[in-house]
Amino acid sequence: MNRPDIKRLPNRANPLDAQKQLLDAVRSNLMPSETVPLHDALSRFLAQDTFSNVNIPDYDKTFIDGYAVNTNETKGASTSKPAVFNVVGKLFPADYPTAIEVRNGEAVYVACGAAIPKGATATVKVEETRFNGGKIEVIREIQLGEGIIPLGDDMKKGDLILKKGQALRPQDVGILASLGLVAVKVARKPRIDILSGGDELIKQSSNHPAKIANNYAFVVAGLASELGAKAEIAGIMPDALDKVTAKIAEALATSDIVVTIGGSSVGVKDFVPDAVNKLGKPGVAVQGVSLRPGAVSGFGIVNGKPVVMLPGHIGSCIAGFYLFVAPLIRRYVGVDGDGLLPKLSAELAEDLETGPQFRFQLTHLKRAEGKLLAEQVEGGSSALTTIVKSNGYTLVPPHTTLKKGSLVEVYLFGKLELPQIV
Amino acid sequence: MNRPDIKRLPNRANPLDAQKQLLDAVRSNLMPSETVPLHDALSRFLAQDTFSNVNIPDYDKTFIDGYAVNTNETKGASTSKPAVFNVVGKLFPADYPTAIEVRNGEAVYVACGAAIPKGATATVKVEETRFNGGKIEVIREIQLGEGIIPLGDDMKKGDLILKKGQALRPQDVGILASLGLVAVKVARKPRIDILSGGDELIKQSSNHPAKIANNYAFVVAGLASELGAKAEIAGIMPDALDKVTAKIAEALATSDIVVTIGGSSVGVKDFVPDAVNKLGKPGVAVQGVSLRPGAVSGFGIVNGKPVVMLPGHIGSCIAGFYLFVAPLIRRYVGVDGDGLLPKLSAELAEDLETGPQFRFQLTHLKRAEGKLLAEQVEGGSSALTTIVKSNGYTLVPPHTTLKKGSLVEVYLFGKLELPQIV
Repeated sequence: MNRPDIKRLPNRANPLDAQKQLLDAVRSNLMPSETVPLHDALSRFLAQDTFSNVNIPDYDKTFIDGYAVNTNETKGASTSKPAVFNVVGKLFPADYPTAIEVRNGEAVYVACGAAIPKGATATVKVEETRFNGGKIEVIREIQLGEGIIPLGDDMKKGDLILKKGQALRPQDVGILASLGLVAVKVARKPRIDILSGGDELIKQSSNHPAKIANNYAFVVAGLASELGAKAEIAGIMPDALDKVTAKIAEALATSDIVVTIGGSSVGVKDFVPDAVNKLGKPGVAVQGVSLRPGAVSGFGIVNGKPVVMLPGHIGSCIAGFYLFVAPLIRRYVGVDGDGLLPKLSAELAEDLETGPQFRFQLTHLKRAEGKLLAEQVEGGSSALTTIVKSNGYTLVPPHTTLKKGSLVEVYLFGKLELPQIV
Repeated sequence: MNRPDIKRLPNRANPLDAQKQLLDAVRSNLMPSETVPLHDALSRFLAQDTFSNVNIPDYDKTFIDGYAVNTNETKGASTSKPAVFNVVGKLFPADYPTAIEVRNGEAVYVACGAAIPKGATATVKVEETRFNGGKIEVIREIQLGEGIIPLGDDMKKGDLILKKGQALRPQDVGILASLGLVAVKVARKPRIDILSGGDELIKQSSNHPAKIANNYAFVVAGLASELGAKAEIAGIMPDALDKVTAKIAEALATSDIVVTIGGSSVGVKDFVPDAVNKLGKPGVAVQGVSLRPGAVSGFGIVNGKPVVMLPGHIGSCIAGFYLFVAPLIRRYVGVDGDGLLPKLSAELAEDLETGPQFRFQLTHLKRAEGKLLAEQVEGGSSALTTIVKSNGYTLVPPHTTLKKGSLVEVYLFGKLELPQIV
């Protein structure tokens, strides 16, 4: 029989150069903004700088339950020589605006949040007063402004409140609500369609109807969702060039980014690169990077849209995901620099030495005596259990020797990892 | 005029004792489980220990593209004296099971993921072979098992795969899919109804129809959602005992936990504690804790359901949230111990000294030269901007002096914080 038609991977690219090449190729692919109601805005990426259009509070108010007084009248007050006031009214937060005024010898009861009446310059807590013969006594000097939140204390008109690219946290949504907004412009979620390669997946699924065979697609979809994408598991590519081509074409039509899992190496049934080249220019840009695991990662560009080709082994697949897909999502939603991935510095738990390639080191980050320790997780790059035991990774350059205790940067897989590091 | 009817807060409870009292009171309130499809399972809490019902892989397979051979035949092989094989077949992942067998002098091409044919004991990479006169040459000794993922390597039948209480991460969902599951039992999300106190909120909202006045409810709802609850902003309680009572009763009927914001202090319009006492036994259990800010936090139990009473100032409100609401959510979804809140040890950026109360210290955690630094965020407890500047908190016991550089435990507000610490 004939030897199978074996191709070789092209010269393997430096992974960081390849990543830069990808990001440059999609430079203009920022997601357009969409308007979402505030109650759906949590974790979305703000599409524009947001300035305050109001002063908050928009009048002086008390932050205690007490009495509004003029501090001049408390000069020299003490237990033995209290300042004495007639209480001439009550003010509650809902009473603003009010005509009530504080004159000489007068105080007004103010409930927490109420406006400060004209003539008053501070508020004094109920607990710090004495009640005596229908009047209240203040038994110490009160400082100007005590107990008062002045107009604009929280924010002033024109203040920059939140920056473009901010992933909206609960407090950010709250501050947008306080500006009177009911909706906010955020980056539309990039849609990522995930295609899995291989007849064996179809076969496994049909053998066991309950069996979802393309389980790695669930991992990739979850990681992408965690970073803010709308991930769709778009099915299985049968082992035939025309069918792989059709599946990728279909995914390109509906999504912003296409991700394939498997079928991108140099095996005889690795049709993905040829399919990408058939679909449009420039086609495959990088096939193979100097990364271990993850060497069989690559990407193409078809009519401006990226197709990221991830390897079929789960460890390699995740390495390729963080090399290419995670930065794409970040770029698409408008986050600058290294943002979006939770990262922490940690001490290496063991020595780590790399060979001629970059190392995608699966890592288990843990807490130990106030420190963070990065343990290397070993196990086949094909074992999902290895990924389950890991919570992040470290990217180590080639020909590097790091001693136990060295500080390394650990990238956690997503937002769900840190809360489970107890 | 008469002095308003001023009550005093009861003796303030130790906040940690009060928290324990609350958790004890709801000891039996675990959420029932519900079954969700895998694609909706991300971040949900697993309701039971999950064991493997399969071996993965369930046969020996190759993890490289190469040739399956019997290693005995490569003994002593070298560049000058290669072991020579006839290639007698090709196997792809979808070809399992197969009758192809490797006999003396034979090899089979195996694509990555294919089953190992009978008679073969290892696989050798295509790149490590030479093609010569229709045969392949292996130029070194191949070790037993090289290139093979053995049956059960990833997991074996009966292995404990995931524990009850695990917040399902992408890789956890993937491993559940690999077990052939299409759905999974998770804890139902506890529903939390959030009521905000005060006529002034109604008034603000009606003055400016665009203005969502109960913005603190958005913060509490967001924080609760982040921790895994289903949070509902349930409206505003007008300043009247019967109306507050009706609102809380309505919320109790539809939710697992009721949270009120404001109206729980000793002001004349603080109707929440009286309302809770009216609604059922035992009513208010704690009103006021020795915590700064947050002293006016408390809770009641009405027919087995907790009503958490949070203060109306946002800083105090958040302090009360983490003291009472966050542990409740954790308990309800079945997470043990201190889990669920992302926490990190960090060095204090400045000295910190507490008085007679516990301190809820708003903190800005940041990275500095491989360390984590905890900066104290100052600002009125009523300023939402202060919370926006913070990303977590430190809880410091009373009468404590901590020097700059001391290690403290910082609890981040939620999962969205760490990715934005760059």
